[in-house]
Amino acid sequence: MTQEITSVEVRRFDVPLAEVLSDAKHGDHTHFELVTATVRLADGSEGTGYTYTGGRGGHAIEAMIRHDLAPFLVGRDAREVEALYEAMQWHVHYVARGGIASFAISAVDIALWDLRGKREGRALWQMAGGASDRCRAYAGGIDLNFPLPKLLDSIRGYLARGHDGVKIKIGQPTLEEDVARVKAVRELIGPDVTFMVDANYSMTEAQAIAAAEAFKPYGITWFEEPIIPDDYKGYGRIAQATGMPLAMGENLHTIHEFEYAVADARLSYLQPDASNCGGITGWLQVAELSAAHGIPICSHGMQELHVSLVSARENAGWIEVHSFPIDQYTTRPLVIEDHLAVAPDTPGTGVTFDWEKLRRAHQEMHR
Amino acid sequence: MTQEITSVEVRRFDVPLAEVLSDAKHGDHTHFELVTATVRLADGSEGTGYTYTGGRGGHAIEAMIRHDLAPFLVGRDAREVEALYEAMQWHVHYVARGGIASFAISAVDIALWDLRGKREGRALWQMAGGASDRCRAYAGGIDLNFPLPKLLDSIRGYLARGHDGVKIKIGQPTLEEDVARVKAVRELIGPDVTFMVDANYSMTEAQAIAAAEAFKPYGITWFEEPIIPDDYKGYGRIAQATGMPLAMGENLHTIHEFEYAVADARLSYLQPDASNCGGITGWLQVAELSAAHGIPICSHGMQELHVSLVSARENAGWIEVHSFPIDQYTTRPLVIEDHLAVAPDTPGTGVTFDWEKLRRAHQEMHR
Ligand SMILES: [Mg+2]
Ligand SMILES: [Mg+2]
Repeated sequence: MTQEITSVEVRRFDVPLAEVLSDAKHGDHTHFELVTATVRLADGSEGTGYTYTGGRGGHAIEAMIRHDLAPFLVGRDAREVEALYEAMQWHVHYVARGGIASFAISAVDIALWDLRGKREGRALWQMAGGASDRCRAYAGGIDLNFPLPKLLDSIRGYLARGHDGVKIKIGQPTLEEDVARVKAVRELIGPDVTFMVDANYSMTEAQAIAAAEAFKPYGITWFEEPIIPDDYKGYGRIAQATGMPLAMGENLHTIHEFEYAVADARLSYLQPDASNCGGITGWLQVAELSAAHGIPICSHGMQELHVSLVSARENAGWIEVHSFPIDQYTTRPLVIEDHLAVAPDTPGTGVTFDWEKLRRAHQEMHR
Repeated sequence: MTQEITSVEVRRFDVPLAEVLSDAKHGDHTHFELVTATVRLADGSEGTGYTYTGGRGGHAIEAMIRHDLAPFLVGRDAREVEALYEAMQWHVHYVARGGIASFAISAVDIALWDLRGKREGRALWQMAGGASDRCRAYAGGIDLNFPLPKLLDSIRGYLARGHDGVKIKIGQPTLEEDVARVKAVRELIGPDVTFMVDANYSMTEAQAIAAAEAFKPYGITWFEEPIIPDDYKGYGRIAQATGMPLAMGENLHTIHEFEYAVADARLSYLQPDASNCGGITGWLQVAELSAAHGIPICSHGMQELHVSLVSARENAGWIEVHSFPIDQYTTRPLVIEDHLAVAPDTPGTGVTFDWEKLRRAHQEMHR
């Protein structure tokens, strides 16, 4: 069988950020972790998938791929992507139902889709739905620690790079400070640029309701993660009380969690991240769910991959152009044309890592 | 500060089972994994906690303790058990909300409770509520693969060892086979022995309803995990349709998951496992929740520890005497007196590993 899996190689890199980035719940980020999985077949072909973290958990993801998923996959038929996805979920179920297992499975699943695309000569945006090869995109700042002048400079930079949508972190010590920053950003960008805010669940339900009301004059497209992701019904109450469109997804790691969210959280946007919700197979399950409920499908992080997934869907929302620049370590950093993000036409995922650049970045962290 | 954490040592053991054990969803078990965390303080004292798996995920747990939790804990005050618990949850939150992180935090949290008990000269059953030093216990078979004569021999063995409660696995190819086994076990044990069944979520909702009805003549105290743990509302419908008492908890890894279960699943028993729901701190949160809702608190696995936790609670149900014999690798295997499991009076958790025996077991697996 030429499509038999012969090996799964896992690599982990610490990638430094150009400057310290902060949000309301995870504090300061000095680097991120990239964990890659390269699946090789009997016919000599290979595919690579990946996941990432905010700097913690990468060793555990690496260990699960190496010790649990790789031995399980070797000898199996790489063409059975969806069946392998289900089988991997059950293989590690006792230590899973989300968490590290979702990250580990995601990396491997993306590798299997890379192989599928290369085998079939199809680009990911074609395999994932084919609606379009481009989609809206916004720049997602991790900028809670930026003083206002620096925040505005950062926004100017996004606009200069061709973005017509921006998101900032909120969760300053007082609501007044958040509102002042929101107001200043809206004044800078004018009425036509799309503008979102992200609290990284730093608020109570009452704080979130007050904030949603206070932000209303500033044309906020969505209010992301006001409260802890687990409190689906709390999201529902905030949406009902304020009418503010809510978004979440980056912290939901199983299709079941997305189902609760759709049932109870009254979300206006879903933001699954293929690096932690089960790879491309898991992301597409969430996309089907969102379509069935009339909710635009968006994404979190790894723009170089999500550009293909969001573009492919009829109910496409926006991709986030995340401040972890994974795409800068690939041979095709994200392409923006006329404010739209453009998916690669390369067979496979279209994400090819510059291993030497990653190696140098990792070494720089550990010098 | 004498209570400053100076190191966290993590060890992982593969422990072979005496024979192959099977359930409906995880298949055959040939061994289990034990991951221990030993926390050492500036004053020279140490405490040990642990978690276990069905044979997968242990390397990932080990990696998270070594690379993420240990560096976070060193230098902190070991007396701040509950604050450290919350801080660890947030430290790894992005890769967590359950899964491997819950297992890793559990091991460390138990070590901190071991230190607390040794420092205060108190046994775990006293620290955890103090209601009693003993509780009901049942023998939980992993016996789906046992032909009926062997199943009955196994049950006879439990009774001979002093148990007055037994649980068997169900999920045979047909309901008729399950019913025949349930009937045979009830006939063997007579009317006075407590009897539970466990499907390990191998059924659909309709199958579970049919099974619950078919089991009714046989005095089943609870029907454990009929369907996937994620489907809380499905549990609720099964309970409502049949009146059969339902139990779950071994696959719920955060307090939020237990809250959903209590809200929607109409459970008659909660079975948190301190090895995967956040250690003793996490288990006690679930115990408080169960008390507030009038649900007896039970446990899953690691009887040598749970005997102290369940005994301590006013709303105590049963501990499971699990077929993974962790207690055989400690200096005090579980004590049964007059059918009751007896908690150790030793300060700390009362669980002291025989490291040499564990080392030999691990070596036997890898010869
Ligand atoms: Mg966000
Ligand atoms: Mg069970």
